[in-house]
Amino acid sequence: MALAIRHTAQHVSQDVLLSLEGMVTPKVPFWLMRQAGRYLPEYRALREKAGGFLDLCYNPELAAEATLQPVRRFDTDAAILFSDILVLPQAMGQEVSFAPGEGPRLGALDIAQLELNLEKLKPVYDAARLVRAALVPQKTLIGFSGAPWTLACYMIEGEGNGSFEKTRLFAIRNEAAFARLIDKLTEAVTAHLVEQVKAGAGAVQLFDSWAGLLPKTLFMKWVMEPAKKIVAELRKQVPGTPVIGFPRGAGALYPLYAAETGCSGIGIDSQTPLAWARREMGADVCLQGNLDPAILCAGGTALEMEVARILDIARGQPFIFNLGHGVWKDTPPEHVERLALLLRGFRR
Amino acid sequence: MALAIRHTAQHVSQDVLLSLEGMVTPKVPFWLMRQAGRYLPEYRALREKAGGFLDLCYNPELAAEATLQPVRRFDTDAAILFSDILVLPQAMGQEVSFAPGEGPRLGALDIAQLELNLEKLKPVYDAARLVRAALVPQKTLIGFSGAPWTLACYMIEGEGNGSFEKTRLFAIRNEAAFARLIDKLTEAVTAHLVEQVKAGAGAVQLFDSWAGLLPKTLFMKWVMEPAKKIVAELRKQVPGTPVIGFPRGAGALYPLYAAETGCSGIGIDSQTPLAWARREMGADVCLQGNLDPAILCAGGTALEMEVARILDIARGQPFIFNLGHGVWKDTPPEHVERLALLLRGFRR
Repeated sequence: MALAIRHTAQHVSQDVLLSLEGMVTPKVPFWLMRQAGRYLPEYRALREKAGGFLDLCYNPELAAEATLQPVRRFDTDAAILFSDILVLPQAMGQEVSFAPGEGPRLGALDIAQLELNLEKLKPVYDAARLVRAALVPQKTLIGFSGAPWTLACYMIEGEGNGSFEKTRLFAIRNEAAFARLIDKLTEAVTAHLVEQVKAGAGAVQLFDSWAGLLPKTLFMKWVMEPAKKIVAELRKQVPGTPVIGFPRGAGALYPLYAAETGCSGIGIDSQTPLAWARREMGADVCLQGNLDPAILCAGGTALEMEVARILDIARGQPFIFNLGHGVWKDTPPEHVERLALLLRGFRR
Repeated sequence: MALAIRHTAQHVSQDVLLSLEGMVTPKVPFWLMRQAGRYLPEYRALREKAGGFLDLCYNPELAAEATLQPVRRFDTDAAILFSDILVLPQAMGQEVSFAPGEGPRLGALDIAQLELNLEKLKPVYDAARLVRAALVPQKTLIGFSGAPWTLACYMIEGEGNGSFEKTRLFAIRNEAAFARLIDKLTEAVTAHLVEQVKAGAGAVQLFDSWAGLLPKTLFMKWVMEPAKKIVAELRKQVPGTPVIGFPRGAGALYPLYAAETGCSGIGIDSQTPLAWARREMGADVCLQGNLDPAILCAGGTALEMEVARILDIARGQPFIFNLGHGVWKDTPPEHVERLALLLRGFRR
């Protein structure tokens, strides 16, 4: 019976988690940022059923289904919980809406009034539970949150405009108020990630999509320090849960981020050369990412060559194959199928 | 008389040019990207007189005046010709317009039909001549052009949307056609820069604002290779004219760009740590830039500290003080005055 127990779900190893622990697994595990989404016909059908985008996020059954769709179709090694980074500001009391075909719009921000109500996020954690129950044990459920800086960008700007000038100015001119916002967010992000882990997430990813907007001094203050606190707090509250930090656009600051935050995995954007990242970050941290979503969207020989190039660099190191940014909505699903096939056929 | 000749305009040295030749001048010379523009009341007045933005670009007297305004107000060491990168696609036959308060809109692109008509750009070179005649000899006139990749982004996308997905996809899916476009642009950019030099520009800057969108393999092909060709061609046609390459967002690829293109100066964006850039690029290339435009816009202690930090790093090396991106339109001119004062008070 002892032997049988070792073969139950809890004891089956997951390549994603092994990689995040620094191991070089025979297969290179993979998942894709925004693997659930509009490029999939089955997602578009689900979305019609759900109504608005946020309705889908807050419907546990439908969110779980959206999460599982790409896992079924492409046999990815991880499911990333279908949700949005802006559910957190919403649960802290700021208004958030998505107009059809447009980006998010956020209501007025009152930093002093922000308070996280975890109850509002219960549907998100319920979705995680449903996903974990439905996944085969070899597959990892990845929870996630926007990082404090990136959340603050949307919360102050009121929208996503790519340059976030209002936020960058506010962070310098009103440093004390901005620091209070970041502190509140750091706590809220931690709580949100802990709940996802309790609901079944085996690893979590911290999306700092706008980290690249900051010069070094501010990057250290608003990107690195909060990430470091979150990693340390998770280590206490949910020991053994790896954190993947994704400071998109960090450029030459990637190695500093990796060294200082204590993340188990680092998401590498498409623009950062993978070989350089590995050289500068040492062999113990697991790297993830790097494929240009434009190349996945284009497909063909360009895709095959780029995948071969990435796999060649990643051969002898802990690595999770992924994109350097989310899947584009015009990506033909067949190109993702082709990618999955290439990855499945590769052995170290 | 020989002595007198040595003191005429042609023989007065310019700190910007000396720095680009690798010298460490007692003063750190400075100018700012987009130093002529909407944040200046005198510019707004001029703009009202001119009509549309492109009308201003094509009016030699008014364009020269716009160029000179910040030099007068802040005593910058260089004037950058007031113009726009999109005058080049326009002179090649593509329709370009600027709707008030909006970004540029470009007409349909027919790569085969593109042909540079330098005659259309005569007002730009006339403006350069007027500026050079009005500048004191110690000051440098900097000519510029968008780099082929960045121009191609606007030309294919038809607008500036920050992500340029259509262009990135086209460059992969239709590589041969895209290569023809880049080749045509490389020639046109070269011709445009040569004419500016002949009209009085002492140095030229190549703006590759969207270089950061490309992964390494494509960065080498569409950013580095064209820059290398342009630098080599200028070396033949207008020997001794330094080229400042500004591959914004190049991140970890900056050192490769510097080593391969042969640029005399490299524009460093705000996000790239200056000390790292210097360490990785060696002491012979002149670096330029780095101040976050958000910090200039914010002013106050943050500005003073950041300027001190940059000057400290730049102390013993060829360096031109500048921003890491253009001046924001809400920047109070007094903050630029304060910056100018700080720089004037600094001696190596």
